[in-house]
Amino acid sequence: MELIFLGTSSGTPTRQRNMSGLALRLRGARSWVLVDCAEGTQHRILRTPLSVMSLRAVFITHMHGDHCYGLPGLLASAGLLGRSEPLTIVGPPPLRTMIECIMQASELSLPFPLAWLTPDDLAHGPLLPDLAVDATALSHRIPSWAYGFTEAAIERRLDTEKLRADAVPSSALWGEIQQGRDVVLPDGRAITAADYLLPPRRARRIVVAGDNDSPELLAAGAQGADVLVHEATYTEEVLQKIGPGPQHSSAMRVAHFAQGAGVRNLVLTHFSPRYQEGGPLPLALLEEEARARYGGHLLLARDLDHYVLDRTGELRQAVI
Amino acid sequence: MELIFLGTSSGTPTRQRNMSGLALRLRGARSWVLVDCAEGTQHRILRTPLSVMSLRAVFITHMHGDHCYGLPGLLASAGLLGRSEPLTIVGPPPLRTMIECIMQASELSLPFPLAWLTPDDLAHGPLLPDLAVDATALSHRIPSWAYGFTEAAIERRLDTEKLRADAVPSSALWGEIQQGRDVVLPDGRAITAADYLLPPRRARRIVVAGDNDSPELLAAGAQGADVLVHEATYTEEVLQKIGPGPQHSSAMRVAHFAQGAGVRNLVLTHFSPRYQEGGPLPLALLEEEARARYGGHLLLARDLDHYVLDRTGELRQAVI
Repeated sequence: MELIFLGTSSGTPTRQRNMSGLALRLRGARSWVLVDCAEGTQHRILRTPLSVMSLRAVFITHMHGDHCYGLPGLLASAGLLGRSEPLTIVGPPPLRTMIECIMQASELSLPFPLAWLTPDDLAHGPLLPDLAVDATALSHRIPSWAYGFTEAAIERRLDTEKLRADAVPSSALWGEIQQGRDVVLPDGRAITAADYLLPPRRARRIVVAGDNDSPELLAAGAQGADVLVHEATYTEEVLQKIGPGPQHSSAMRVAHFAQGAGVRNLVLTHFSPRYQEGGPLPLALLEEEARARYGGHLLLARDLDHYVLDRTGELRQAVI
Repeated sequence: MELIFLGTSSGTPTRQRNMSGLALRLRGARSWVLVDCAEGTQHRILRTPLSVMSLRAVFITHMHGDHCYGLPGLLASAGLLGRSEPLTIVGPPPLRTMIECIMQASELSLPFPLAWLTPDDLAHGPLLPDLAVDATALSHRIPSWAYGFTEAAIERRLDTEKLRADAVPSSALWGEIQQGRDVVLPDGRAITAADYLLPPRRARRIVVAGDNDSPELLAAGAQGADVLVHEATYTEEVLQKIGPGPQHSSAMRVAHFAQGAGVRNLVLTHFSPRYQEGGPLPLALLEEEARARYGGHLLLARDLDHYVLDRTGELRQAVI
């Protein structure tokens, strides 16, 4: 599984960081899903190998502009580029109202259909054949969700040792067995596929949270997650100074939660523009604060960072 | 007067060009006005000395997304930065409906008031004390306008030769006379200011057109304009191939009009993404086509181009 960060600032863009947008795809696949779509997300996409033509679904965590104002432009561009594939959009109910209002006012008609779902609809059945998606309600000034993405199509692994020990010839039959199909060998023996398949590996799981002042709401959702992507808008000191009004998390609070929940990889994002590398409030302040509470693999996302989560659950940086 | 191009592509952004946005300001002033506001306009502003805090008014030529989808984000950022000054927005009636719908759906409340006007309202009285603005209806798939900006506060010029000839002492009294105030000299002579002021220079005028397939609609509006900024989405050949459906202009048609209208400086913009420097359809094709029909000062705008129109009507490139 792969993550490509398209924006990592909160509220307003900076010269280095756009606002929220995160691409997730299964390694090697062309198709991908997008979590949040701030203004300028389509501009960031132009700097990646991603294409709006192969976008499968969009998930909006909440209705604040820095998480969804880029959606009408992304849809319009997909239309101009000739997309015909339907596109699923999952988001809070006002999202559909807003997009339809924009489409009407700007006389935008799309050459592809939109399928609208709310986060609650995800419980009703699978959205994508190879990626299970669930939603967890968070705590913010307006309704906000985390989306959990779990591999749904785990490859079957042959027990090749046992196949060899039982002298099953390594012909096309092995492929049949790997597909889970029972076969009859040339020598007449009947082979039950299940007897020659290893237990499947654990499905990888990535949780991407929207704005949230209560990371502990993810206690169940982050259970067994390989990666948690969560906002860390401020340091705890700045959060205390500003007060609870904006309902964001500090790096400290997220780190504390991730440590307790046993999250293996924690990616912080959605940084207040006051934190700038080389400025009076360097990003290192957030990093130090998180490291003091969290002993796992910690990353502070930057725009266009590309991370690969391998099958062992290790998250490493890659070149786009 | 100054122009800063914030976007020069049509329809979709490219890696080099954003979609429409153009800043206009009086030379030396901090405050400025914006014509069109595509998605990503606020990102471009971050690369100029312009600030949303000193934006005086926004003029939207028409409702297509590549001319207005950046407005909600620009307003939200101005709010987050603490703007309190009212902001005037001039645009087609559906613009207000759309922005208010977005503000409601995304629970955006601004700490500054918005004043809404339609292009037709501009005829009812002056909007800005130092810049007269008028609107001309154009021809496009949806209602589209050109905005004309004319200096309204021309500096008074003293007839210093006559002042010296009449032995009016060059004291603070000259300043009074320049302000148009009659004065009495120490020697008792009464001086009528108007007798010592030169005829005012011609007011500079810049016309910025929205999407338009009929440049001749600007015959009156471009009369006496120092600069016409007009879309040239395609070459005539490509326009003929596509057909009249999109209702855009070719470089040839705009150039032909500008030549006939005696426009001194013509700036082409809003180029189809198919034209790319170094690509199979270089921008030079548009330039050649326009030069063949237009003998004035021709410019093809690039993002972040900065032009200064001096008092003699000469338009030259400057460093931002």
